[in-house]
Amino acid sequence: MEQNKIPQATAKRLPLYYRFLNNLYQQGKMRVSSKELSEAVKVDSATIRRDFSYFGALGKKGYGYNVEYLLGFFKSTLDQHEITNVALIGVGNLGTAFLHYNFLKNNNIRITMAFDADESKAGKEAGGVPIYHVDELEDKIEGTEVAILTIPAEEADTAANRLVDLGIKGILNFTPARITVPSNIRVHHIDLTVELQSLVYFLKHYPLEAE
Amino acid sequence: MEQNKIPQATAKRLPLYYRFLNNLYQQGKMRVSSKELSEAVKVDSATIRRDFSYFGALGKKGYGYNVEYLLGFFKSTLDQHEITNVALIGVGNLGTAFLHYNFLKNNNIRITMAFDADESKAGKEAGGVPIYHVDELEDKIEGTEVAILTIPAEEADTAANRLVDLGIKGILNFTPARITVPSNIRVHHIDLTVELQSLVYFLKHYPLEAE
Repeated sequence: MEQNKIPQATAKRLPLYYRFLNNLYQQGKMRVSSKELSEAVKVDSATIRRDFSYFGALGKKGYGYNVEYLLGFFKSTLDQHEITNVALIGVGNLGTAFLHYNFLKNNNIRITMAFDADESKAGKEAGGVPIYHVDELEDKIEGTEVAILTIPAEEADTAANRLVDLGIKGILNFTPARITVPSNIRVHHIDLTVELQSLVYFLKHYPLEAE
Repeated sequence: MEQNKIPQATAKRLPLYYRFLNNLYQQGKMRVSSKELSEAVKVDSATIRRDFSYFGALGKKGYGYNVEYLLGFFKSTLDQHEITNVALIGVGNLGTAFLHYNFLKNNNIRITMAFDADESKAGKEAGGVPIYHVDELEDKIEGTEVAILTIPAEEADTAANRLVDLGIKGILNFTPARITVPSNIRVHHIDLTVELQSLVYFLKHYPLEAE
């Protein structure tokens, strides 16, 4: 593993900063003050300034930080030098969307294989990724540490446990189900309901203002 | 709009708390101390205790907070009493997955219509939602304030601007593209690349320990 130069406490705030800055960028904002950032992400200004100094971003008085520069830095930091192979479990609509998405072409994370319980999908490919029958998991998955779950909710727990037994260390869970795994397995859950609810909640309670 | 009983500063921390607690729950953890929470979400313990008191969650000394109770509270708070209609733009694999997902059946957010540029999809339905040709946007979308974008990245900006002109106030952007909209439009961006990169980053730099 390469040396991690950013303190762990700072690194843990990266996704927080990233998400907020990404939203700003989408609204066409090119700069942000540490005060605005502080209010939005609920981290005090002094900590933000110290964190950002690790990123080589020195805010200018009366200007603030360059949003695009920071986003570029976060993207390159999150990108790894080492290649990571990922297995996708469940080639339904969502899984197929993932396989066809070209979003992974520019970085070092690769979906190298996909699995489905449907015999008719086995032996085919989608987006250049071979699809195997799920019975072949044991034969094929060796050396893969990350899996994306895009299967029906009711199969999530069984699949997760089988993956963990086969050496998977990290799971990106796109099913609405919560899964129970040992404490050394990292699970990130993208809950589409919550993402939509959160947007609606903020829309109703905190309307934004036109400039 | 109904009265919002939680202070705005507290409400803004909800998604932060939600995400962390959801991960804990998935790892099978049933309780959490305010110290652990504080370290994870980078909010000081006193603030967390005050926030949680609004949720009716009073941590017990030597026990902490009940993870499941808190999650239940967050879910019901994010759920709205008013029904919100949502339009989905782009009935490809990702859009179709959304339409078939049963994740929205239990709350007050409904995808009521979908649009696609493909003439052969118009007039059909998916998951019980009617699909219209995108030329019908102007006729159909009146009264809808939220849109989900599941179209190719290169069409995202044009589509977003057209939606804003038609009165859309909030956009859930699932394309890899950033979109530029007026400052009073709320955009939440789910960047699948970043979600996967973030999982891999944490996996490599901060391995979790077996209990």
